[in-house]
Amino acid sequence: MDQRVADSIGAAAQVLGDRWSLLVLRDVIFEDRRYFRALLTGSAEGIASNILADRLVKLVEAGMLARGTAARGQRARYSLTEAGIQTLPLLCALGDWGARWRHGTDGRGPAPVLEDADRAMLIAAGMEQLRLHHLGAGAPPSPGEDPLERLKQLYYGPPGDG
Amino acid sequence: MDQRVADSIGAAAQVLGDRWSLLVLRDVIFEDRRYFRALLTGSAEGIASNILADRLVKLVEAGMLARGTAARGQRARYSLTEAGIQTLPLLCALGDWGARWRHGTDGRGPAPVLEDADRAMLIAAGMEQLRLHHLGAGAPPSPGEDPLERLKQLYYGPPGDG
Repeated sequence: MDQRVADSIGAAAQVLGDRWSLLVLRDVIFEDRRYFRALLTGSAEGIASNILADRLVKLVEAGMLARGTAARGQRARYSLTEAGIQTLPLLCALGDWGARWRHGTDGRGPAPVLEDADRAMLIAAGMEQLRLHHLGAGAPPSPGEDPLERLKQLYYGPPGDG
Repeated sequence: MDQRVADSIGAAAQVLGDRWSLLVLRDVIFEDRRYFRALLTGSAEGIASNILADRLVKLVEAGMLARGTAARGQRARYSLTEAGIQTLPLLCALGDWGARWRHGTDGRGPAPVLEDADRAMLIAAGMEQLRLHHLGAGAPPSPGEDPLERLKQLYYGPPGDG
């Protein structure tokens, strides 16, 4: 984390260029897993508990997650910060690429192509939904709309059976 | 690489959730480094030669880079494949996040915000430029325009002095 980084892509890759960190963010954002145990037992990839603990510390240090203070005997709840919320476009870009170039692995074809402006609006609405849920501030989605669920269907895909 | 992956984000993170792989793609795309030695000696992060060799093999295996056949005594040149070219939106999302949340490290502020449609068009034009350069097929940019250079300025930032 202390290494000098000269550019924005390199600086971002230093904290986000890690498979497990990306998967933890994915599970917090799309699966609403907010507790250590939920992240551990729900993990489709079977994350090890020491790796999960390490990545949670790193994501908190990097300012993407905030760890709630837990009373004695209570579990600490994690929330996304604004920096964490703004990884949503990155996760969608990742899911877009994965659906197109790795679709063999999940049996889905490429994500349906949205108009660029629609895609950007949907992602912006998803971030607003996350703000309301994690920061307690933000506008609720229009009645009957669930941008995060829509993004999940487009770029994430339902977890498989195994 | 064989682990079962149930979703598109997880599948993409399996090959792209790696700092050095992202940095190699960045250098191929934005610095036009096509040879092992150029990638090694030009690396702002000082990539080690064994790590570079490993990541080049992985990127070729994952279908993002193609290794040219080299005559005896000649150096092999790497080219982006279509899957590699389509990591450009991901790298721009990474750079966007880095400029906004890690700008202390490169002394730049957040990237200027483009209209969503302009941003998407610029990235599409950058991918077309990469197709021409790496695949030998694609439309040249409009006269006087250099989308990749523009994207580089927006989302990558000039390498620092150190």
